[in-house]
Amino acid sequence: MRRLVVTDVPRPDAEQVAALQGFGVATVHEAQGRVGSLGAALRPIQQGTAIAGPAVTALCWPGDNLMIHAAVEQCRPGDVLVVGVAAASTHGFFGDLLATSLASRGVAGLVIDGGVRDTEVLRRMGFPVWSRHVSAEGTVKATAGNVNLPVVIADQVISAGDVIVADDDGVVVVPRLEVPQTVEASRAREEKETATRDALAGGQLGLDRYDLRPLLRDLGVEYVRWDELAEQGGA
Amino acid sequence: MRRLVVTDVPRPDAEQVAALQGFGVATVHEAQGRVGSLGAALRPIQQGTAIAGPAVTALCWPGDNLMIHAAVEQCRPGDVLVVGVAAASTHGFFGDLLATSLASRGVAGLVIDGGVRDTEVLRRMGFPVWSRHVSAEGTVKATAGNVNLPVVIADQVISAGDVIVADDDGVVVVPRLEVPQTVEASRAREEKETATRDALAGGQLGLDRYDLRPLLRDLGVEYVRWDELAEQGGA
Amino acid sequence: MRRLVVTDVPRPDAEQVAALQGFGVATVHEAQGRVGSLGAALRPIQQGTAIAGPAVTALCWPGDNLMIHAAVEQCRPGDVLVVGVAAASTHGFFGDLLATSLASRGVAGLVIDGGVRDTEVLRRMGFPVWSRHVSAEGTVKATAGNVNLPVVIADQVISAGDVIVADDDGVVVVPRLEVPQTVEASRAREEKETATRDALAGGQLGLDRYDLRPLLRDLGVEYVRWDELAEQGGA
Amino acid sequence: MRRLVVTDVPRPDAEQVAALQGFGVATVHEAQGRVGSLGAALRPIQQGTAIAGPAVTALCWPGDNLMIHAAVEQCRPGDVLVVGVAAASTHGFFGDLLATSLASRGVAGLVIDGGVRDTEVLRRMGFPVWSRHVSAEGTVKATAGNVNLPVVIADQVISAGDVIVADDDGVVVVPRLEVPQTVEASRAREEKETATRDALAGGQLGLDRYDLRPLLRDLGVEYVRWDELAEQGGA
Amino acid sequence: MRRLVVTDVPRPDAEQVAALQGFGVATVHEAQGRVGSLGAALRPIQQGTAIAGPAVTALCWPGDNLMIHAAVEQCRPGDVLVVGVAAASTHGFFGDLLATSLASRGVAGLVIDGGVRDTEVLRRMGFPVWSRHVSAEGTVKATAGNVNLPVVIADQVISAGDVIVADDDGVVVVPRLEVPQTVEASRAREEKETATRDALAGGQLGLDRYDLRPLLRDLGVEYVRWDELAEQGGA
Amino acid sequence: MRRLVVTDVPRPDAEQVAALQGFGVATVHEAQGRVGSLGAALRPIQQGTAIAGPAVTALCWPGDNLMIHAAVEQCRPGDVLVVGVAAASTHGFFGDLLATSLASRGVAGLVIDGGVRDTEVLRRMGFPVWSRHVSAEGTVKATAGNVNLPVVIADQVISAGDVIVADDDGVVVVPRLEVPQTVEASRAREEKETATRDALAGGQLGLDRYDLRPLLRDLGVEYVRWDELAEQGGA
Repeated sequence: MRRLVVTDVPRPDAEQVAALQGFGVATVHEAQGRVGSLGAALRPIQQGTAIAGPAVTALCWPGDNLMIHAAVEQCRPGDVLVVGVAAASTHGFFGDLLATSLASRGVAGLVIDGGVRDTEVLRRMGFPVWSRHVSAEGTVKATAGNVNLPVVIADQVISAGDVIVADDDGVVVVPRLEVPQTVEASRAREEKETATRDALAGGQLGLDRYDLRPLLRDLGVEYVRWDELAEQGGA
Repeated sequence: MRRLVVTDVPRPDAEQVAALQGFGVATVHEAQGRVGSLGAALRPIQQGTAIAGPAVTALCWPGDNLMIHAAVEQCRPGDVLVVGVAAASTHGFFGDLLATSLASRGVAGLVIDGGVRDTEVLRRMGFPVWSRHVSAEGTVKATAGNVNLPVVIADQVISAGDVIVADDDGVVVVPRLEVPQTVEASRAREEKETATRDALAGGQLGLDRYDLRPLLRDLGVEYVRWDELAEQGGA
Repeated sequence: MRRLVVTDVPRPDAEQVAALQGFGVATVHEAQGRVGSLGAALRPIQQGTAIAGPAVTALCWPGDNLMIHAAVEQCRPGDVLVVGVAAASTHGFFGDLLATSLASRGVAGLVIDGGVRDTEVLRRMGFPVWSRHVSAEGTVKATAGNVNLPVVIADQVISAGDVIVADDDGVVVVPRLEVPQTVEASRAREEKETATRDALAGGQLGLDRYDLRPLLRDLGVEYVRWDELAEQGGA
Repeated sequence: MRRLVVTDVPRPDAEQVAALQGFGVATVHEAQGRVGSLGAALRPIQQGTAIAGPAVTALCWPGDNLMIHAAVEQCRPGDVLVVGVAAASTHGFFGDLLATSLASRGVAGLVIDGGVRDTEVLRRMGFPVWSRHVSAEGTVKATAGNVNLPVVIADQVISAGDVIVADDDGVVVVPRLEVPQTVEASRAREEKETATRDALAGGQLGLDRYDLRPLLRDLGVEYVRWDELAEQGGA
Repeated sequence: MRRLVVTDVPRPDAEQVAALQGFGVATVHEAQGRVGSLGAALRPIQQGTAIAGPAVTALCWPGDNLMIHAAVEQCRPGDVLVVGVAAASTHGFFGDLLATSLASRGVAGLVIDGGVRDTEVLRRMGFPVWSRHVSAEGTVKATAGNVNLPVVIADQVISAGDVIVADDDGVVVVPRLEVPQTVEASRAREEKETATRDALAGGQLGLDRYDLRPLLRDLGVEYVRWDELAEQGGA
Repeated sequence: MRRLVVTDVPRPDAEQVAALQGFGVATVHEAQGRVGSLGAALRPIQQGTAIAGPAVTALCWPGDNLMIHAAVEQCRPGDVLVVGVAAASTHGFFGDLLATSLASRGVAGLVIDGGVRDTEVLRRMGFPVWSRHVSAEGTVKATAGNVNLPVVIADQVISAGDVIVADDDGVVVVPRLEVPQTVEASRAREEKETATRDALAGGQLGLDRYDLRPLLRDLGVEYVRWDELAEQGGA
């Protein structure tokens, strides 16, 4: 297996990346056809922050953060550093020193399939992180991995230059070449949702808004009063 | 298996429900004889909010939120929507649109044995949620379940009309017919606790307050100084 | 097996304990040679609080908090109560009454390998807690354990008088006799980190600061441009 | 909460119970409309054994097997002892002594939502067990629970007299009053499966047997040759 | 997202596939440079069986086995059916009917990131299976996925035509284009291991065989007699 | 932290070790006062094998088996090699080569808090293993740990020279200095169990054998006929 650091990765259009950030994770996920979620186990260490940016990817060994250092050099302003780990590891691969380094390069945030530490400082610095663990346990710098080759997190393949969108709901990845159509689909979805929100706020039911009553009937769902059911010995 | 939506479920007395909310989850759980907890894995998405209300129950299929829409129509002001899932599922079954719908009906909150999304918006709306997961992963509307039949969450059976009490400690269920006696027992417990709190704040030990010294003695617990034990080769 | 409450345990020097609190969990963990972490599953119920203090240890049975009451009496101002549980248990062993008792004795906080409750009140009281679970489920007072014998949490042995350091990153234990050298090593590390932080903030890369480029080369890591790799059929 | 031992529970017809045993867990589960499974975490300690019998239920406390002793007395020949536990517990609640006692009463087997031990002896005795854990860790006899009140395992409610069917695939429960219709539905399903098995063994595809091709088409599934897709830049 | 069934996927050389089967999972994994393992959670339902074959891949929805039926048609003698699931699901997607169908086509076995049932029959049939769960819980046939597009299991990407090797140690995947070099590397490794095995059986230590003593010395490992350490107050 | 290999560790009396093997894990665990179990997650890779022997302990790093090689040299005939891992790791640290080496030295078996591979060969060799995982994933030999310092597995401290007893129920550790009293207590327990087994086989109930009826009465357990309870609206 070759150990590579891939440089000069193409990034998607910055305006479209900004648009994805505005839509948020749930909308983008839906707009892609319900794919791309990095799962419920990657959680933000802060609340109320949303980011989007092209992925710089790194593959580390459990308990070893050497390749994060190699990846920092490949990061440009607005990028999101995405760290995969070759086997499950609760170590704290990343802390305030690396965050200082990334912040000085204008990096938008970190997504890591392992642990982070110095979380209180990271929150004070305003450097956003989504991680699987919070853990003080330190790492070594001894084993080679890759930078900007595809990594897999939660069964999603993330290639360098794909767009990462992250907020309080978690993280979603948009393949670089699908960014334009995802922006468009997100915009369409958002417009539809705004109208729906108004209708629901005004008291219309989802049952009627989405025309679900015929479906329930077709699926054999019956309506019965509680006292009638109790008389039949049910409930 | 019949697929039912049960309507016109009887609710418990509103004043007693309000009383349960005031006592909080831990006190109500104790007052019931240490039963009814929905476990440590159902967590609030917000902090510092306490609710209580009669349960409207829905049973959904994994990755399918059709029956939540059917359940909304059965909700009245003050109710708590309780969603069980037929098999473990990390999907985000519920987001800001459904919350808008429930809020417009005066629903007190949501308890769900699966995932939710749009959590940042939900917190801003002030719509309280207790869930097993936070996840952007969307659902379909394709499979029938039930509304207002009993659901099981964390091995607790919850019937429509039972009272749900939820706060930062989690969620507890009180069977509808046991509400009056639970209110009474909670009140008694709270009064006792207030006196105990004052005594402990004043320096009395639980060992003396609860008369535990004889019990320790009966259980064979011995007291030994650290240096004496070290001399015996212990510690 | 003898059931003991060990009294008059020696504590480390208070000034050195205070120094450890200032360094924080991640620095102390590194300074000890990357040992002593109580793992990623013990989480704080509050944010932004750091404590350090000598451990008073208690061993409880699942669902039984009797020995916490026995341990309270052994606590002195500045101590940290550390509760191990003989088998995994999600119960809420500890709530606002016990916190009132500990606070009245000047105890610095609680670390528990089980659940706690009344978390909203604990936060309002300012009594800091690190626990494995939050759970309303109550306990009995029926089974003997130990106080101030060593307990094991997350495969770390904690003896009475060892120093517990806890913050947003988790919990670390420092053996009593290693406190002086750990303070010194932490101080040295902190100084080095300050200089490193300045350098990284100024744009120096970790690759250069830690002289990692030769290591990458020795490990066979190659650099390749994305378009060259694509031409080779890679990426 | 009352602590009860319920006696003289009605059992279903023995011939029908025997029929359910013959069908096996997967068939009975399907025949009930895909409900009643006690989940993938309850595993047999032996291989190649299938049982069915009316449930005698017991509810134990974590680490306490007192109520199993009370339940033994309520067991009749052919019964299956079903043990729920009030909170998750890995203890070994049951070993060769209790198995000897149950075997002497003609009990068909044990289903337990906790741990068992002496598994090598149990296999040699031919006493079948389905459990969540295997664990040498012993229990006490100190806390009251119930016998023959409903217990909940893996979110399934099991009442005394319900039929338990268990084999290498796990455990399923059939409510006592639904036994006749489940026997009938299982028989119908088995007959259909025999014909299907012959057809599939003869080379017919499920796609044709179940007429799934139109469904795939309606769902928008397209067929494409690998080399054509590769040319389009896909795969 | 397009829903595709890809046909006429190229397979690797049959002789080389047979060679990989002979080497076994651990040797092939090492020969690839320690990559390709599908992890410790995919377990065989039988003991002592080893297979290898080109992957036919299917992506199913949780609780839905429609695409397995579509995949069967794409299977040729010697293939291994590999089933990914779009979200974690404990359902039993596969039983004796599907196994009958695959066996009639000469398929070598099944690898599935979900559950299987009828395990006792599968063992009697001699149809080998590696799965994440054993579960009687049935599935529906309602949702489209893919056949022979890449699936991800345990963060490994598996493309149709890649070689699956599976035995009692688990499952490993070898990319189709890397089969020849992996066969060669496996053969070299096996030869070296045979010589090593003889040496170790004859009493040579790994410390000497692999020349590890200098490494231990360089890493600062010291040797000390137990009684000397005890005198120093250690151990 | 010093990195040590401790040599010439004292072993307990061989006859007493053999006696412990005869009693089995469950009996020894009880005889020690229900302590010493290494938990339900350490499982044998074989069935029907029981061993006992003095522990040679090794501490490895995740994904690194260097210290196992150092430990082999310290093993004498009849020893049990016990491998702790500094952080959770599913890697396969141990395979048939190391087993060949240990077998040639007369080692009784392996207990490891990580993964093993070549399990089919290990079973054929008759080399018994208890492990947390089975995994083909290989390890490196790069990081120093310790040999014959105490290791912690499942919160149990195991010192070199302690006796490990392992069978189908799992693994228990007996501190070296407590071996004589544990042998005696195990013998007493076994004798009592033989008499109890005969009594239970003859039909006596545990309720009477252990005189539990008064306890049930004191705990407030009431007996009620099923039909009476049904009339009261219960069950």
